[in-house]
Amino acid sequence: VRIGAYTIIHADVDIGPASIIESHCVIGNPTPRAGGAPLVLGQNSHVRSHSIFYQGSTFGEGLITGHQVMVREQIRAGPGLQIGSQANLEDGLKIGDYVRTQSNVFIPQGTRIGNYVWIFPNVVITNDPHPPSDFFLGVDIGEFAAIGANATLLPGISIGANALVAAGSVVTRDVPAGMVVAGNPGKLLRPAAEIEHRDGSGKGVYPWPHFFTRGYPDSVTVGWAEAPPEK
Amino acid sequence: VRIGAYTIIHADVDIGPASIIESHCVIGNPTPRAGGAPLVLGQNSHVRSHSIFYQGSTFGEGLITGHQVMVREQIRAGPGLQIGSQANLEDGLKIGDYVRTQSNVFIPQGTRIGNYVWIFPNVVITNDPHPPSDFFLGVDIGEFAAIGANATLLPGISIGANALVAAGSVVTRDVPAGMVVAGNPGKLLRPAAEIEHRDGSGKGVYPWPHFFTRGYPDSVTVGWAEAPPEK
Amino acid sequence: VRIGAYTIIHADVDIGPASIIESHCVIGNPTPRAGGAPLVLGQNSHVRSHSIFYQGSTFGEGLITGHQVMVREQIRAGPGLQIGSQANLEDGLKIGDYVRTQSNVFIPQGTRIGNYVWIFPNVVITNDPHPPSDFFLGVDIGEFAAIGANATLLPGISIGANALVAAGSVVTRDVPAGMVVAGNPGKLLRPAAEIEHRDGSGKGVYPWPHFFTRGYPDSVTVGWAEAPPEK
Repeated sequence: VRIGAYTIIHADVDIGPASIIESHCVIGNPTPRAGGAPLVLGQNSHVRSHSIFYQGSTFGEGLITGHQVMVREQIRAGPGLQIGSQANLEDGLKIGDYVRTQSNVFIPQGTRIGNYVWIFPNVVITNDPHPPSDFFLGVDIGEFAAIGANATLLPGISIGANALVAAGSVVTRDVPAGMVVAGNPGKLLRPAAEIEHRDGSGKGVYPWPHFFTRGYPDSVTVGWAEAPPEK
Repeated sequence: VRIGAYTIIHADVDIGPASIIESHCVIGNPTPRAGGAPLVLGQNSHVRSHSIFYQGSTFGEGLITGHQVMVREQIRAGPGLQIGSQANLEDGLKIGDYVRTQSNVFIPQGTRIGNYVWIFPNVVITNDPHPPSDFFLGVDIGEFAAIGANATLLPGISIGANALVAAGSVVTRDVPAGMVVAGNPGKLLRPAAEIEHRDGSGKGVYPWPHFFTRGYPDSVTVGWAEAPPEK
Repeated sequence: VRIGAYTIIHADVDIGPASIIESHCVIGNPTPRAGGAPLVLGQNSHVRSHSIFYQGSTFGEGLITGHQVMVREQIRAGPGLQIGSQANLEDGLKIGDYVRTQSNVFIPQGTRIGNYVWIFPNVVITNDPHPPSDFFLGVDIGEFAAIGANATLLPGISIGANALVAAGSVVTRDVPAGMVVAGNPGKLLRPAAEIEHRDGSGKGVYPWPHFFTRGYPDSVTVGWAEAPPEK
């Protein structure tokens, strides 16, 4: 494990072999809300500079973060999670395998994120239907769903598997599997399967795993091209 | 006062007793625009890591910040201010008592924020009606108002006391006291008092102080439950 | 050149004379994607604290950044670039002269930004028309255009010279030169030249260089007041 300059590693931290923690980080920031549990980063993790991880969360192998991320306690995430720069992950999240967020996303308590989900820059997820209150309704995001840049997801909604939330949408209702939602308030537009590739080939794009596999291990993508996930 | 590692405390800083400044901060960053005034943090303040406070602002007791906040000069804030991680507070703000912002908010010069206001994640407040210019119209936010996540407030508008701005709204006109606004451009929907609690009880939720008092001192909330603030 | 405490300066960095790099920065962060090229910061640059610059980008003289910015490799920018706090500039950008971004903007690969452009807080620019994919369509922003706070620009669109994108807009189509766009989806409203100054004078505001010149060198603004740029 390589640790950068000016980085603080607290007690109760378990970092897997071959990992890199860059400079100016705070790793395993203590909190009583961790219940004494350690921070666990799987092998081959890479945490970029100026990032903060609290005590009491567990990440699978191959975690990769951008810079300046802020990640709280009691999170459970599968392998291959990628977190964009300046992202903010609150406590208690349930995150599947090979989830990718881009920069500056906000993901609050109660959010459940399925495998292979993408969350694009500046997406804001909420959890309080009548703020401020102590009554939280978490958002559910299904497998392979893609949440477009600067979208806002209202409390308690479900985004179905393989759904696509257009950039800038404010999603106030459940989105069925495989559907596209856009606008403010978000309206269902059509099945994502009707979207054509912008290369002019006339090919469909969604579900995306039939043509996009960059960065996933072969053990995961075997079969994606031939039989993309059901909508 | 406890000071974390790799934190820089400049001259002209007055930190109250029993305060905590975490690691990697810059406190009292010098600027000629402070007019020689010190940075004043009241007693029992807690500034989390990687935060930057300029010289020349004054905060009441019990200031609590998230990580990576950036706070400029010439701000005057009452007691109990909470600032979310990665929030960005520009110079010259007038902030009342027990105001709470969540993460990643942007609050520019000229904004006036009343007592007990809530500002949720990624809210962007503006001040220039025809950018770029040197003509600023600040936003006014009345007592107990709640500004939902990722909302945008246009220059010069007033958000009335006890009003609710729905998440993702782009608010282009004044919002009367106690009203709900939503959409882009924001439209007045109805009185907030008509919103029912999502617990199925049929109870009203707003004005919120009649049922939400978490974290406020008793001296503040006495009487809230029985006689919520007028709309 | 002045370098602040706890700042890391990597090899392959060329910082011009009379520059300031504040504390807690990482300058010239190595990456194989820089192709061995250095980071070049022109003379009189000022990088504020907690900022990260990768190896392999080149900035003209007078670069000024806020705090906590994150700037990747292979960027080419002219003189006088200002980058707001917590902004995130991805790799390969082409940025003209005297461009100004405010805080927390996200600018991805493939974006081309003309001279004298303004990008206001929390603007999100995108580049993938059907995410996730490997097919990128960059956004083009013409000279003197102003992109309002929290706007979202969809992939592949062009914002014409002297155009104005209203705050909170989601821009899905090209915007002709000198036009105002607003809403979600963005609609063309009218020529920016019809906007009157809010000081009650009845004067027009756009193109903005005929009345706003703050902070630009005289060599640039000579002639702006008399003969503002063509729409």
